[in-house]
Amino acid sequence: MNPQTPLSPQLLALDWGTSSLRAFLMRDGEVIETRQSAHGIQHLPQPGTPGYEQAFAAIAGDWLRQWPELPIVACGMVGSAQGWKEAPYVRCPADIGTLAGQSVAVPSGLGPDILIAPGVLFDEPGELPDVMRGEEIQIAGALLDHPAWAARSCMLLPGTHSKWAQIEDGRIVRYASYLTGELFAVLSQHSILGRLMPAAAEKPRETDEAAFELGLSVARDSRPGDLSHQIFGTRTLGLTGRLPAASLADYLSGLLIGHELVSGLAGAGDLAQVPLVMIGAPSLCRRYAHSLHFMGRAADAVLDNTAPAGLWNLALAAGRVGGGHR
Amino acid sequence: MNPQTPLSPQLLALDWGTSSLRAFLMRDGEVIETRQSAHGIQHLPQPGTPGYEQAFAAIAGDWLRQWPELPIVACGMVGSAQGWKEAPYVRCPADIGTLAGQSVAVPSGLGPDILIAPGVLFDEPGELPDVMRGEEIQIAGALLDHPAWAARSCMLLPGTHSKWAQIEDGRIVRYASYLTGELFAVLSQHSILGRLMPAAAEKPRETDEAAFELGLSVARDSRPGDLSHQIFGTRTLGLTGRLPAASLADYLSGLLIGHELVSGLAGAGDLAQVPLVMIGAPSLCRRYAHSLHFMGRAADAVLDNTAPAGLWNLALAAGRVGGGHR
Repeated sequence: MNPQTPLSPQLLALDWGTSSLRAFLMRDGEVIETRQSAHGIQHLPQPGTPGYEQAFAAIAGDWLRQWPELPIVACGMVGSAQGWKEAPYVRCPADIGTLAGQSVAVPSGLGPDILIAPGVLFDEPGELPDVMRGEEIQIAGALLDHPAWAARSCMLLPGTHSKWAQIEDGRIVRYASYLTGELFAVLSQHSILGRLMPAAAEKPRETDEAAFELGLSVARDSRPGDLSHQIFGTRTLGLTGRLPAASLADYLSGLLIGHELVSGLAGAGDLAQVPLVMIGAPSLCRRYAHSLHFMGRAADAVLDNTAPAGLWNLALAAGRVGGGHR
Repeated sequence: MNPQTPLSPQLLALDWGTSSLRAFLMRDGEVIETRQSAHGIQHLPQPGTPGYEQAFAAIAGDWLRQWPELPIVACGMVGSAQGWKEAPYVRCPADIGTLAGQSVAVPSGLGPDILIAPGVLFDEPGELPDVMRGEEIQIAGALLDHPAWAARSCMLLPGTHSKWAQIEDGRIVRYASYLTGELFAVLSQHSILGRLMPAAAEKPRETDEAAFELGLSVARDSRPGDLSHQIFGTRTLGLTGRLPAASLADYLSGLLIGHELVSGLAGAGDLAQVPLVMIGAPSLCRRYAHSLHFMGRAADAVLDNTAPAGLWNLALAAGRVGGGHR
């Protein structure tokens, strides 16, 4: 690094998922510059290692020509069995030290190797197993910035496959995934329910709060097994005119998020004693915050993308950058 | 009818759904001859009334030339808003007299009008509304052949949109639909879960009973809201090697049927006192019977297609055929 340039970066951090690649130049734990490309691992310019190298060179080649010894870390599906190099899952309980210790290095084709973080596996007898890859780094980012949550907290990462993770002593001790976002998408796009819903692309529109809360209330009052009947209700609420067609998607969204919350909150331990932290895209977090409020609960904090902080934390734990907490 | 022909039919009964049309020549409540065509209401030779007339003439034209005054009744989606002529839903409680009284007639283009049965609507304040169209006739068929069930029974019709109907005094007093079959289909075909499952078409195969029962047991032990986590388990059971790829569909099937049963049995009233009758395709009924047994319950009877008997019952109640019970 050039000591004459106070803003020389100390880390190149990659959040490399299925459908996109984001690159962050970082210094002192802060992002200096961000780039994004569509070269997720399922959308590479060509298959295999040459495709990864090409995608990497396209997003970061000039940075590495300028700073050829910049350490590089990555997280996400780039470390999956279908990724650039597999970083096998580590088991719960896992902390940032476990993640750093089990990261794998792959030659970047430019400058230093890339250190790829593993995902986290929950696999206990008598329980359904679970997997995450990428969310563990977001959690590590939240914990870097808010060390008080390390002692004990519940981290909720809403999304296509929402995660509810229990944190103790800085470690992810258990977690559960919910297929909420994907269930909404496949039901809206591929089931009979979608026939009554106006195409989402037709117009951007406001959420029908009453329809959304009807879904939440139906979820809240559920008995075990009721969900597929309540999903069918999306159709019958439309057929009977109780909800307008434009509001059916909001009922279904409230129903599915509501079910996730009912189960997630029941599994989250004593939430009166434990901070509940939400991490995710602001618009989705607002929807979940509304839902939590409806269920009589509030998130203690809502964080936007914590992946860069988590990758900084990984680089710290791996000795790739110096210093303690920023 | 020709008195010299002892087997002259007394009724032409049509079960006309979305994807197929079945025609039954009947006498004394029994089917003499069955025909089937692919001209469901979404697969007509041309749109609108000409398409219905053409499909009807193709399947039954020669019958009507031979017996030009044969009464004709129909049930199913042919009476929906997208059908030949809409027979608006009747509300619960509904019996065969209600259905006959609210049937609508449409000119067949050949011989007599066709009497089309309405569907049944459940629509009570504070509950999700529900609709059926076709199943009410299958229920009427079961009740014609087994009048003892009219006093009180629970009728389970498994399928794409399973129905659980409560019968009292010969009437459908309430019922609930479950999207079980469609949920299985869209998750298998359109979600991330399908990526781990071998294509169903690759080979016909035996059910993995252990995987199916794992799904049932997970469903049985559910708390409210758990389903979308347990659905995600289809993926993680495969990724962790706990189930082979070929068995993941059986886990998912057991899980979804199990959830339906947990909810349906809880809503079915005091089933120790009430006969539980299952109506449907034999292979699917075997799967449900297995699941009921796993839940500690048995069906008191399992019936194959009762639509012809139900259409006979409709014709009786409408005065289109003579006599009481066969």
